[in-house]
Amino acid sequence: VNSQRGDGQAAIGAPSPDALLPALDERQVATLSQVGHEWDRVSGDPRTWRYVLPVDPDLGSYDAAQFRPTRFGRFVPVAGLGRQPSAVEATSEAETPPSRPGHLGYRLRRALLGPPLAATAIAAERMRKLVALPVLSADALSSVAYGPEAMLAILVLGGSAGIGYSLPVSAGIVFLMFSVCVSYRQTIRAYPHGGGSYIVATDNLGRVPGLIAAAGLMTDYIMTVAVSVASGVAAITSAIPSFTPAVVPIGAGVIVVLLAGNLRGVRQAGALFAAPTYAFIVAIFALVTTGLIDADGRGFHPAPTPRLAATGAVSTLLVLRAFSSGATAMTGIEAVSNAVPAFKPVEWRNARATLTWLVALLITMFASIIALVHLDGVVPNGKETVLSQLAHRSFGSGPMYVYTQAATAAVLLLAANTAYNDFPRVLFLLARSYHAPRLFLRIGDRLAFSNGIIALSVISAAIYVTFGGNTLSLIPLYAVGVFLAFTMSQAGMVVHWWRHRDPHWRKSLTFNATGGVLSTIVFITAGITKFTAGAWVAVLVIGLLVLTALRIRRHYDLVAEAIALHPDAIEIPASAPLTPGSGTTAAPRRQEADGHEAAAPSQDGEQPEQEENPTVIQHLAIVPLAGINLPGMRALAYAASLRHPVLALHISPTEDEANRFRGYWHTWGDHLPLEVIVSPHRAVVAPLVNYIVALHHQRPGLTLTVILPEIVVHHWWQRILHSQTAPRLRRALRPLPKIVVTSIPFHLPR
Amino acid sequence: VNSQRGDGQAAIGAPSPDALLPALDERQVATLSQVGHEWDRVSGDPRTWRYVLPVDPDLGSYDAAQFRPTRFGRFVPVAGLGRQPSAVEATSEAETPPSRPGHLGYRLRRALLGPPLAATAIAAERMRKLVALPVLSADALSSVAYGPEAMLAILVLGGSAGIGYSLPVSAGIVFLMFSVCVSYRQTIRAYPHGGGSYIVATDNLGRVPGLIAAAGLMTDYIMTVAVSVASGVAAITSAIPSFTPAVVPIGAGVIVVLLAGNLRGVRQAGALFAAPTYAFIVAIFALVTTGLIDADGRGFHPAPTPRLAATGAVSTLLVLRAFSSGATAMTGIEAVSNAVPAFKPVEWRNARATLTWLVALLITMFASIIALVHLDGVVPNGKETVLSQLAHRSFGSGPMYVYTQAATAAVLLLAANTAYNDFPRVLFLLARSYHAPRLFLRIGDRLAFSNGIIALSVISAAIYVTFGGNTLSLIPLYAVGVFLAFTMSQAGMVVHWWRHRDPHWRKSLTFNATGGVLSTIVFITAGITKFTAGAWVAVLVIGLLVLTALRIRRHYDLVAEAIALHPDAIEIPASAPLTPGSGTTAAPRRQEADGHEAAAPSQDGEQPEQEENPTVIQHLAIVPLAGINLPGMRALAYAASLRHPVLALHISPTEDEANRFRGYWHTWGDHLPLEVIVSPHRAVVAPLVNYIVALHHQRPGLTLTVILPEIVVHHWWQRILHSQTAPRLRRALRPLPKIVVTSIPFHLPR
Repeated sequence: VNSQRGDGQAAIGAPSPDALLPALDERQVATLSQVGHEWDRVSGDPRTWRYVLPVDPDLGSYDAAQFRPTRFGRFVPVAGLGRQPSAVEATSEAETPPSRPGHLGYRLRRALLGPPLAATAIAAERMRKLVALPVLSADALSSVAYGPEAMLAILVLGGSAGIGYSLPVSAGIVFLMFSVCVSYRQTIRAYPHGGGSYIVATDNLGRVPGLIAAAGLMTDYIMTVAVSVASGVAAITSAIPSFTPAVVPIGAGVIVVLLAGNLRGVRQAGALFAAPTYAFIVAIFALVTTGLIDADGRGFHPAPTPRLAATGAVSTLLVLRAFSSGATAMTGIEAVSNAVPAFKPVEWRNARATLTWLVALLITMFASIIALVHLDGVVPNGKETVLSQLAHRSFGSGPMYVYTQAATAAVLLLAANTAYNDFPRVLFLLARSYHAPRLFLRIGDRLAFSNGIIALSVISAAIYVTFGGNTLSLIPLYAVGVFLAFTMSQAGMVVHWWRHRDPHWRKSLTFNATGGVLSTIVFITAGITKFTAGAWVAVLVIGLLVLTALRIRRHYDLVAEAIALHPDAIEIPASAPLTPGSGTTAAPRRQEADGHEAAAPSQDGEQPEQEENPTVIQHLAIVPLAGINLPGMRALAYAASLRHPVLALHISPTEDEANRFRGYWHTWGDHLPLEVIVSPHRAVVAPLVNYIVALHHQRPGLTLTVILPEIVVHHWWQRILHSQTAPRLRRALRPLPKIVVTSIPFHLPR
Repeated sequence: VNSQRGDGQAAIGAPSPDALLPALDERQVATLSQVGHEWDRVSGDPRTWRYVLPVDPDLGSYDAAQFRPTRFGRFVPVAGLGRQPSAVEATSEAETPPSRPGHLGYRLRRALLGPPLAATAIAAERMRKLVALPVLSADALSSVAYGPEAMLAILVLGGSAGIGYSLPVSAGIVFLMFSVCVSYRQTIRAYPHGGGSYIVATDNLGRVPGLIAAAGLMTDYIMTVAVSVASGVAAITSAIPSFTPAVVPIGAGVIVVLLAGNLRGVRQAGALFAAPTYAFIVAIFALVTTGLIDADGRGFHPAPTPRLAATGAVSTLLVLRAFSSGATAMTGIEAVSNAVPAFKPVEWRNARATLTWLVALLITMFASIIALVHLDGVVPNGKETVLSQLAHRSFGSGPMYVYTQAATAAVLLLAANTAYNDFPRVLFLLARSYHAPRLFLRIGDRLAFSNGIIALSVISAAIYVTFGGNTLSLIPLYAVGVFLAFTMSQAGMVVHWWRHRDPHWRKSLTFNATGGVLSTIVFITAGITKFTAGAWVAVLVIGLLVLTALRIRRHYDLVAEAIALHPDAIEIPASAPLTPGSGTTAAPRRQEADGHEAAAPSQDGEQPEQEENPTVIQHLAIVPLAGINLPGMRALAYAASLRHPVLALHISPTEDEANRFRGYWHTWGDHLPLEVIVSPHRAVVAPLVNYIVALHHQRPGLTLTVILPEIVVHHWWQRILHSQTAPRLRRALRPLPKIVVTSIPFHLPR
């Protein structure tokens, strides 16, 4: 089953909207051809009559101008292309829904999202390095706004002695950043088509490690949105404390803006986001420079920290917790290696250069902020962010302070965009390998993975609201997923180098192994030291995601197996009746049913669904009637015009009512057989279903077509004025074999 | 249109589940017969082939024992009755739904509600007077628990001087009760089949006054539930103040209990409710007797009222407001006249006697409570009900106090049951005259109007919760509806006597006129004096209900007109082709379409839905295919087996994909014409719809049957794993003319 869907290929390569039509393997092609031969046995040459269509299917000679707005809304035709006689292409207006409110909604959508883009536009939307750097680094660089603070917030629990550990812990983090950068440089070289953790882990370690990496990444992206938004809102409330009570609505509003922006399309959103990232870089460097000049003025003597009461001893555990909290400053580093195909050619070279720049900036900013914190003697407090305190010291409360806070808020609020780039991509890859619902494959008409974007927004908004928008309570959930994905990715790369032995493979393997060991240490540290603080949630979610993905894959495998053309499923028994017109000459069958001779395999209850050959299908049309009226007569006429046997059904509450109906039937002329079911319990759907099931049991070989007259109303509120018998019946009949439901619409005049 | 549905008859007479099949008028019968003749013209004698069914529709010889539980759930067959050769009766188990959770739900429902009752059981469920009195009087009698308090709560605003008006205002209310009783005695005599305000007003004043009365009654019943529950919960919290914070959940719970009890069936609920009413009557008389003995002990000198600060002057307006608030003590009097047919024969005599008893009890209890309030010097306060204060004075806090409070709570909580009897009945009558959705006609399997009961519960619970369960803030919404209905009813009776001139008509007319004038005065007083306090809501709701009812009736009239068999709608043009087998000989039609000769009326775009004659229906089956698989092959086989022209459609994202599909099609043998639509915008549903619409415009005379392969999953969660193309396509095609949708189910193996 795996091979027939090109599984190996699906795991590698750029996301593509194509190849949605599963390829048939040899066995299936042989079966298809064999099925075709069976069809040839249909009496007469089918080409003589089934090809003679009463319409011209090409619509080539069709006059498009004839389509003016009709009462069903504005229909724009599928225009004939002329390229190929039998090709018809849907124009962009083909998306226009027919109903009026739907049409308004469509206009609104186009106004918000812009015109739809054709699939061929996807290659044109590539990024230059100067655009890619801010787009892909927003997440990583903005992490310095909360990473140092998260580290200090743990160390401060150990009082002044704890704060003293900030420099060595930071040095560890900087070393980690450097190693991970070197690691990912190897990955980019090895995976020029995009080396996300999922792809690397699946490729080198196998399916389950790949899913673990994907689950880690997904929690990472969700937390990135929640933490970035929380931290960005904190930058705002640090500057304007009166906004503090509105933290939750402000953050939720930001997520909605991100949602809308990303539905417009990934790359366009990227260009929009270049400005705040550069503004933030400028702000941090100005802040640090000013701070260092001030410190120079006092001879680089650290300012005294406020006297701190230690609430706990300075233990190894505390230092490790601080390390794993501070390590959140490096989240987002992996964004570049995921997005290699989005760079302009040569993709991997540009990506590598961008990654190096990114990490250099990150290390510089992180280290100088820690240095300044040390020099200025700043400690975290619940009311104002550390960055805001530093800015106050460097700039006072003037315009530069406001600029710094605004740039921090902007870059943080927009950093979440990196997650919006990558979360839907992971879901797409999972969906392409049948580990996530197929709806995540669907690319919106702005070439964005709309469903993944919507899913990310909903989940991260829920988490943000649940935690009340508090950055520090979100942090413990954060590190686990990132470093699990890092670990899987680096481990995969080690295996890759070992297997491939490219030039310089030993050096690359060493770099990746170092990065992998460090990532593993951080992952285990984070998982253990913060388990009770919230990491257990992340671990649980990752586990559930992996199980769900495996379950989904199993379902798709079963479906693929079930619907595939394999010889067993469509074998046609040699003894099957091949006489023509089995529908119109049903008389002999009647005798068969009465005489209990129905032993032919096609009528066997054990295999009731082997009905792929038109010659063995025998029809009985069933028309349930509520009364003698136009919709009912229309359904009867439709049934009779099919030229197969027809049975009309009517449900009456009493015998008197039944006789009245029979009287009307007789007036009409008794043209079709009628059965009246008396249902004194006033139920309608259940007796019909039971009767139809009884008919099926009587003749399991028969295909029963239930022809339902349905009144179609114009407004939704009118629907509650009509009994929903038809939809209820359709729902009740769905699980039953060999029962086909046909709806005959009856449109009320306006 | 009106006459054909027996409108006049519908307004009178007991509710009946029968007569759901609309009667055909002469014109329709003639049309039906004419249609039959057209069918006779179908080539060959249809009896020879359409009567020869491949099944035995009677299922008479069918072995019921064969139905063991299958994988589709437990199916119980419709058992042949043997009474009549072609009659089949649904057994009670026919209601059993096939799915497993549905089956559990069914069991639970049966356990809660009891076994279903047959329609014939309805006559047996009649009430004796001693049962009818408590059932129908619970509402009216329990009103004395809040009526006097509502009056005093207004008068107390005028301080001690205001309280002094309590005796004259009460005298007015007692006179009103007496007049209304006399009025309704006339109504019962004139309307022995049930003389609710709606029926009387419709009958004598016309449609809109009837609807106004019905709307008034409906708001009345909703408020009865809300006020009774609020007041009953107040009786509990007066005794146990610690329950005060839980007022809203307690009340909501009570409404749920009422809902469940009433879904079990009206009459059974009645028997259950006899005890509390009698207990309440006993409690009030014990209370009053003890109180009077005490008062006798102090020589009937009124106890001093607490010093009251007047918050306003004692104005005429204040007295009128107190009067209209106190008049809520008579809500529920009309219940007897509505329920005449529920009495044992002779119905109207028993009903009249019950009404007299009821009002006598009501006046006695109301008057003696007011007298006791006066003697004991009790004034309303926000914490304890007046009745609870009186009980404390008479009985202290001993068992008799507890008994009084318990009985009061019980009768109030159950008083709402009168509304549960009558609200669904009003809705039923409205639905029967096509002024309310038909779903309110449906009698549940316990012979209760389930939908009306559910609607009442939902609306009154919403109002109860909105007003926080506060009786006094609910009162202003209350009186308006009741007295509007009283007014309409009495005015209708005046017209009735004037028209019919029965024996004693002058006396009856005088009584009804007096009642009518008094009701009008109360209605206007209540509407004006409490307009800003909440009466405007009631007025607005009544207005909206009337407008909605008229709108609904207009819709049903349009539908009835549209679906009726009138000669215009089904006229078959003399020039219509009557050649047999138009479906299988489509070749000549092709020429017709190409040569633009399609001028026959049956193919005219202006009248696209005249398709009641099987000979003029021409078919084209369209099979949209997602890929080459078993469900698709099955849909193709089904389509081909219908022996009409078939066209297969496929949507491809690119031209390459399209060619791949064409290749598979060719491997299969090109048995059917195929059209591949290239949709670079990745949309699937819209291009299909537009293509199908284009085909329809090309040949409007053609009936297009869209045959959709649909994968049926076993669990709801699996549904999100599959693209919902089929349902989305069905929804999009619904509003289009001459397009029939057929679903071919494909069941996944378990």
